[in-house]
Amino acid sequence: MISLADLQRRIASGELSADAALARSVEAIDARDKAIGAFVHRAENVRAADTGPLRGIAVGVKDIIDTADMPTEMGSKIYQGWRPRADASVVMLLKQAGATVVGKTATTAFASRDPAATVNPRNSAHTPGGSSSGSAAAVAAGMIPLALGTQTAGSVIRPASYCGVAAIKPSFRLLPTVGVKCYSWTLDTVGLFAAGVEDLAAGLSAISNRPELLPGAAIGKPRIGVVTQDFADAPEAASAEALRLAVDAAQRAGASVRTLAMPELTAQAWGAQDTVQEFEAHQALAWEYQTQYDAMPPLLRAKLDETRGRILPADYDEARRIANRGRKALAKLFDDVDVLLTFSAPGAAPKGLALTGDTRFNKLWTLMGVPCVNIPAHVAEGGLPVGVQVIARFGNDAGVLAAARFMEAALARMLAIA
Amino acid sequence: MISLADLQRRIASGELSADAALARSVEAIDARDKAIGAFVHRAENVRAADTGPLRGIAVGVKDIIDTADMPTEMGSKIYQGWRPRADASVVMLLKQAGATVVGKTATTAFASRDPAATVNPRNSAHTPGGSSSGSAAAVAAGMIPLALGTQTAGSVIRPASYCGVAAIKPSFRLLPTVGVKCYSWTLDTVGLFAAGVEDLAAGLSAISNRPELLPGAAIGKPRIGVVTQDFADAPEAASAEALRLAVDAAQRAGASVRTLAMPELTAQAWGAQDTVQEFEAHQALAWEYQTQYDAMPPLLRAKLDETRGRILPADYDEARRIANRGRKALAKLFDDVDVLLTFSAPGAAPKGLALTGDTRFNKLWTLMGVPCVNIPAHVAEGGLPVGVQVIARFGNDAGVLAAARFMEAALARMLAIA
Repeated sequence: MISLADLQRRIASGELSADAALARSVEAIDARDKAIGAFVHRAENVRAADTGPLRGIAVGVKDIIDTADMPTEMGSKIYQGWRPRADASVVMLLKQAGATVVGKTATTAFASRDPAATVNPRNSAHTPGGSSSGSAAAVAAGMIPLALGTQTAGSVIRPASYCGVAAIKPSFRLLPTVGVKCYSWTLDTVGLFAAGVEDLAAGLSAISNRPELLPGAAIGKPRIGVVTQDFADAPEAASAEALRLAVDAAQRAGASVRTLAMPELTAQAWGAQDTVQEFEAHQALAWEYQTQYDAMPPLLRAKLDETRGRILPADYDEARRIANRGRKALAKLFDDVDVLLTFSAPGAAPKGLALTGDTRFNKLWTLMGVPCVNIPAHVAEGGLPVGVQVIARFGNDAGVLAAARFMEAALARMLAIA
Repeated sequence: MISLADLQRRIASGELSADAALARSVEAIDARDKAIGAFVHRAENVRAADTGPLRGIAVGVKDIIDTADMPTEMGSKIYQGWRPRADASVVMLLKQAGATVVGKTATTAFASRDPAATVNPRNSAHTPGGSSSGSAAAVAAGMIPLALGTQTAGSVIRPASYCGVAAIKPSFRLLPTVGVKCYSWTLDTVGLFAAGVEDLAAGLSAISNRPELLPGAAIGKPRIGVVTQDFADAPEAASAEALRLAVDAAQRAGASVRTLAMPELTAQAWGAQDTVQEFEAHQALAWEYQTQYDAMPPLLRAKLDETRGRILPADYDEARRIANRGRKALAKLFDDVDVLLTFSAPGAAPKGLALTGDTRFNKLWTLMGVPCVNIPAHVAEGGLPVGVQVIARFGNDAGVLAAARFMEAALARMLAIA
């Protein structure tokens, strides 16, 4: 994989020009993407910027995020060839930071469950996960150092886990969703994929203009609360093993680790996520569902058919109240620990491309709006990576990155010893 | 003005066909809009729906709200002739309820301060207010029974006050903003204009599928807290008189009325609104500002020039924390009263069309996300209407409508006696 932070250092030192850094990604895409299918559109005549912390950094942008100079097709024939007027806000933030958008990455249709054609770069017989399929795969395949995705239930953390890359779903609205195709305005969150946690921090700091997110020289030892999300049922053996390894590594590295019970109010919030998501989806996608019914992607259409008229405004209001109570209960957990550690996904990437995997270990955290980072922790049978998820209090994006960097280093050290 | 609720009753009884109701609006626009300039685009071949609570109801939609079958020009030459792919969610909600969108109404550029060409129907030498200029004017001039606007600071309540119509800015996100051009995602709120409060309730209930918003047979006597928003400076004489009349009417009608002091935390929140608004505007309008600078509307461009780089993420985070504290302090005020009563605007509509008026009595309530209704309470010199604003707790849209209906009836009774 291409490390963003490493490229930054080499560009800053003059060892590598921004143009050469960019060219490396363009060549890698040329060489590898035929086999992966991460990109649905490539930018023409890309150039590196002269200034900005992300000069020379090639970025892939999920194809539900508006671009003025490239089509934005939402993974659906309904938007075939569609050209938005303006760039999404987060695309402008990338450009302001000096990054170069080299292409649009494959998304499941409308960031729901109908799969893209992308394969998992670790094992092409398996799904890369979704909905940010192409973004996760493009970073995993070493084509680009940074990609934008979005998460409404589990669409950043899960594909990162399946593809073996680092990813952050920042605090709700740390990155703007203006110009991002909406599925659920309470949930949709823009996130980043990169090779490692330091790379995520460098990218997020540059895009958001928040220097406090950059990693400090020293990494403190976090107080870690391990949660198994029992309300979401048991994980498969591969994810249980990933969490066991992460706990082991954290303890060996001197972190304080203890198991925490999730409050009942968070279990209720977990159960309310679908109601919020699907109620809002019926409004957000009303034009597509009602005027383009025959062209709708089949899994999404079936989901909307199934939930149509079933979720009343009163159900939605109650779900939002449950979510608010869940947020308060969750905040209290962080009085005693810096971060939570849990599964990123039920297991390794499922076989086949028809389904993109299950969101049950992700959807609570999206509804809570708290920052989550995936780090690879285990490699299961078939060379399939399995991640774990580090979670901090709302607004503590610096803390989640620092703790994830600690975990990443602890896992690497344990692996080196083993 | 055309009463939506009255049209509904006549259509339901068979006295009037939906087509005839719609035709009445089309004819009124044909006859009057040349002098008013409320519409920037008219729909062709409009037809009434056969079913739905809003069948036969002609609606004007502010031209920052996406429509698939009409241009959406944002009041700016940057979007001249622009055709979105999809209808905004709230346009689909209107259509689902049976309404017919008869045209797009004039907006200040990007819902900021650069004026539209619309004049005030009560006195054409005066501004109709903004940013929902055409929506307020179209209802006031008796052209249509319902119009959609949006408010980021004071863009629904203020033009309603200036034009002498009823309007509601509902609780934050009661109506979806998907497909509405963003200025500030924390603030932008879709609202409605209609002839009277019953009409607002009928419209909002139908669009949101919330029957509990429909007015009950009996109107209870609300407990009213009068607030003068001293942090926003003193109003002009016309608005002071409007509030005095409203208080007098409420007392005569048997409401419990008392003056309340606004908590200091809400004064701080009032002061934080600009920071939230302008920080987000720099991201929301980044593409326009950075790639279409020369074509930007001058007042908005000057505002962005002035604030560029001045609001740091830390300032923004602090403004949001202040807003949260303000929301909690405000909620406590509603332990003792059902609604607050205050100024809708500093005075009557200013003379001339160059400026659209001041938002200082509106912007706190937008940041708080609480439902607000304007009702006309006074007619100042020059035949210029002046409204008052009824405000309820977040989520109590039924309560704000019931209390505003009480106030409207009390004012009408007092006027009839006088």
